[in-house]
Amino acid sequence: MRIGGAFIAHNGPLHARLDKGRLQLGFRVEERHTNPLKICHGGMLASFADMLMPCVAMYQTEAERRFLPTISLQVDYLAPAPLGAWVQGEGEVLRSTRNMVFAQGLVRADGQVAMRVSGVFKQGPLIGDGTDRDPLGLRGHAA
Amino acid sequence: MRIGGAFIAHNGPLHARLDKGRLQLGFRVEERHTNPLKICHGGMLASFADMLMPCVAMYQTEAERRFLPTISLQVDYLAPAPLGAWVQGEGEVLRSTRNMVFAQGLVRADGQVAMRVSGVFKQGPLIGDGTDRDPLGLRGHAA
Repeated sequence: MRIGGAFIAHNGPLHARLDKGRLQLGFRVEERHTNPLKICHGGMLASFADMLMPCVAMYQTEAERRFLPTISLQVDYLAPAPLGAWVQGEGEVLRSTRNMVFAQGLVRADGQVAMRVSGVFKQGPLIGDGTDRDPLGLRGHAA
Repeated sequence: MRIGGAFIAHNGPLHARLDKGRLQLGFRVEERHTNPLKICHGGMLASFADMLMPCVAMYQTEAERRFLPTISLQVDYLAPAPLGAWVQGEGEVLRSTRNMVFAQGLVRADGQVAMRVSGVFKQGPLIGDGTDRDPLGLRGHAA
């Protein structure tokens, strides 16, 4: 996945796919993602949450495609994501207005619920001309 | 700063110091921290917030020193932290119980308020034998 800029390039890769039209985002917990307790650092999971919500929004809504800078993000760490676990998240847009997107999601580690997330995002600059409905290039790889 | 494990080693360094007994944590926004808009990625700032709260707690409370896994984290992005900005945060413990720590903080970018954070943390495993009141080794460098 090429979006997210240098920070996600440095900490990724994050993997995206469509499952019956719903976006799924995932990554494998590697050593470089861990805290001293050898589980995924809360910051990495928050970063994943911060990517999950806008990516979900890009595939769920029919609005012009825009960057969605984060206004507010809330994460609850329900269970640890151990080293080696496959972390995968899904979500939904609760409301999309001209200025804002409200979204929530759930993240699992090896199938077990590990994090709840909700966020508010601003409708930012257009991505390209805003018309690309598949900015992650997933339609050719849909499940 | 050596705490935070591999994830913070990969995305840091974060710099810590004491100013009149209050912990200050900071970092410089580098290219590898940025999103496609060339400002600090929300995930990096959330990771910083997730480190700031426990570090503040380690220097504000007199309790045994413990790892403080995050239960819940809330961040509001009040203003961007541009590439090259010095990001610095302070905070306070609102309540510390046998099981939980409740904390909040403010983060500035080049002196301008950029992020508000609050969090709930669990009293986790002892750090060493729990008696080190200066786990970041800052007393010798106090302002």
